[in-house]
Amino acid sequence: MQKGRLEAFSDGVLAIIITIMVLEIKVPHGEEFTDLIPLIPVFLSYVLSFIYLSIYWNNHHHMMHTVKKVTGSILWANLHLLFWLSLVPFVTGWMGENNFSSKPMALYGFVLLMAAIAYFILQNQIIKTHGKESVLAQAVGKDLKGKVSPVLYVIGIAASWVAPWAAGAIFILVALIWLVPDKRIETIYK
Amino acid sequence: MQKGRLEAFSDGVLAIIITIMVLEIKVPHGEEFTDLIPLIPVFLSYVLSFIYLSIYWNNHHHMMHTVKKVTGSILWANLHLLFWLSLVPFVTGWMGENNFSSKPMALYGFVLLMAAIAYFILQNQIIKTHGKESVLAQAVGKDLKGKVSPVLYVIGIAASWVAPWAAGAIFILVALIWLVPDKRIETIYK
Amino acid sequence: MQKGRLEAFSDGVLAIIITIMVLEIKVPHGEEFTDLIPLIPVFLSYVLSFIYLSIYWNNHHHMMHTVKKVTGSILWANLHLLFWLSLVPFVTGWMGENNFSSKPMALYGFVLLMAAIAYFILQNQIIKTHGKESVLAQAVGKDLKGKVSPVLYVIGIAASWVAPWAAGAIFILVALIWLVPDKRIETIYK
Amino acid sequence: MQKGRLEAFSDGVLAIIITIMVLEIKVPHGEEFTDLIPLIPVFLSYVLSFIYLSIYWNNHHHMMHTVKKVTGSILWANLHLLFWLSLVPFVTGWMGENNFSSKPMALYGFVLLMAAIAYFILQNQIIKTHGKESVLAQAVGKDLKGKVSPVLYVIGIAASWVAPWAAGAIFILVALIWLVPDKRIETIYK
Repeated sequence: MQKGRLEAFSDGVLAIIITIMVLEIKVPHGEEFTDLIPLIPVFLSYVLSFIYLSIYWNNHHHMMHTVKKVTGSILWANLHLLFWLSLVPFVTGWMGENNFSSKPMALYGFVLLMAAIAYFILQNQIIKTHGKESVLAQAVGKDLKGKVSPVLYVIGIAASWVAPWAAGAIFILVALIWLVPDKRIETIYK
Repeated sequence: MQKGRLEAFSDGVLAIIITIMVLEIKVPHGEEFTDLIPLIPVFLSYVLSFIYLSIYWNNHHHMMHTVKKVTGSILWANLHLLFWLSLVPFVTGWMGENNFSSKPMALYGFVLLMAAIAYFILQNQIIKTHGKESVLAQAVGKDLKGKVSPVLYVIGIAASWVAPWAAGAIFILVALIWLVPDKRIETIYK
Repeated sequence: MQKGRLEAFSDGVLAIIITIMVLEIKVPHGEEFTDLIPLIPVFLSYVLSFIYLSIYWNNHHHMMHTVKKVTGSILWANLHLLFWLSLVPFVTGWMGENNFSSKPMALYGFVLLMAAIAYFILQNQIIKTHGKESVLAQAVGKDLKGKVSPVLYVIGIAASWVAPWAAGAIFILVALIWLVPDKRIETIYK
Repeated sequence: MQKGRLEAFSDGVLAIIITIMVLEIKVPHGEEFTDLIPLIPVFLSYVLSFIYLSIYWNNHHHMMHTVKKVTGSILWANLHLLFWLSLVPFVTGWMGENNFSSKPMALYGFVLLMAAIAYFILQNQIIKTHGKESVLAQAVGKDLKGKVSPVLYVIGIAASWVAPWAAGAIFILVALIWLVPDKRIETIYK
């Protein structure tokens, strides 16, 4: 019950974040396809962020499936995660409008990094509440993905100063790593 | 349960997309009815997209009713559908602001086409998971509507280069074809 | 179940409409209270529309409580109602920005009128599906409010040409009439 | 059931309010970190409002958990609360864009004050409906926090004229007081 409302609120916020980003793609005044060309970087950054937010929703979905008891700490860890994700439309817009130049890319990576850390904290709070024998604890296991991602984000942020395209490649790579939903949980739960 | 959250998230995204489109109808500065005249194409394109998104919500509603098991593939096929639908406000705005000229109409048709393909993929994933004897598989049957629509969209896109009004007529026609909710599912299910 | 999703989608759309209106109250550049003065009509029109949308949500809530079976006609009658309500932010903004002058007030009244008619159609579809002995049919009874409101809206629209303040008074009056939630349904249901 | 829809609607509105605020942080045109400096006050005001709205959602969540019967008075008291909270994005934007100067801070404090009063009214309506022996009545007890907060807001509003930073400190203090979720309810309920 309590859990239901936590999920509903998170779904609401994620649904709005994902849809609000589209407002950054401003309708151009001209009516030619060439008028759309300046929007290509904005569009590409939208696609990347859409995928990231979808991954978060997806994994959040699977993680919450294992939750049996919601504590105050879990509520706040969840709100902390939503805070960083709520900044995604802003950094997506900044990155897109500046054609993936180095500073905006670094900030994009930073927000992704903070969101990853917030997800990690939330995951730990849930495991702490439910015990090491819980479904989530066993499913997460060594949590290779969860540990590799922040490292890759840091490398991406550093790379953005030297070669923005390399940062972009790393951010796409992390998305690809996560694109597979957390089969670990599915497997153990059933 | 899992299904409930998938529906809730989809409803959230669709509700936001449908309502965000209204923001494209910018409040005019003048206070005369004549100040509203330039908004007529924007308004008409809003009406068409409202109907399209309503149809998608409606059919999604009926289709999800038959789902018993949600897999990772279904989750991602659903997100893929939501991605294309999230672009509807942008193409609606572009089409409306340019008075239904040819290029914007072609792009509008293209997004509708991609959404139709995404819906088709989602439907197939659900049927694949639930078997050929499932409610959905039997209800969909030969899926005449689902197969005719993409063809009509392609014709509409081609027509938009020559006669934008013909493209518009075709897009309205497809909406009319779908306006009837999927009675097939209702019939077989009960 | 089906009903749950209909309610969830309607709640989503109404929640977004109600909140999106706030975006019409543009943050002023100056930092003095006097900089807020030009916003007063926009704010007052927001308050009125907030009350109207709250009334719709409230009555929708009570009406849906009596629904046992959702048909395609009910789904579409509901979407038709949401369509007219989705135009409320636009007409609210136009009315507020033009200081309640006659034409914007007439259009505001027109959208309220259409929403009232759409609500009436939805109510009739539900009664038609559930029978004359149903909770809703008995609760609605002669539906004095439902029949008086459209008449008052029409008077308000006509009045807006001559005396906009009179139209405003009528629109406030209708809101006051409805401000009492549909106790009829509550009474009979319990 | 009735309660479920009240919660869903409130969650929807709160989720949208919280996410819409992010739109006030306008994407800057430059691509340097220095281009972000003017956004710092807007960002800080966003963080404060995000925390406030999170607290409201959290406490609303706990309070609604104790509700067994929803009356018309509770519905309207809830809508009244949502009205004041819906103004938070506007006052947050005004405060942020004017660098926490005195008048915008006073208005920010005023909206917080009205929201606190609206919450108090809602709480009283719920207690009135459920009796003095109810979970909420016992959990709230003397409601020290609820009584101290409005006093602090009034002091903050007064302070904003003399020393805006003092008002800011007070608004942060109130947030800190509430940051702990209502453990009282959790304790007694279980």
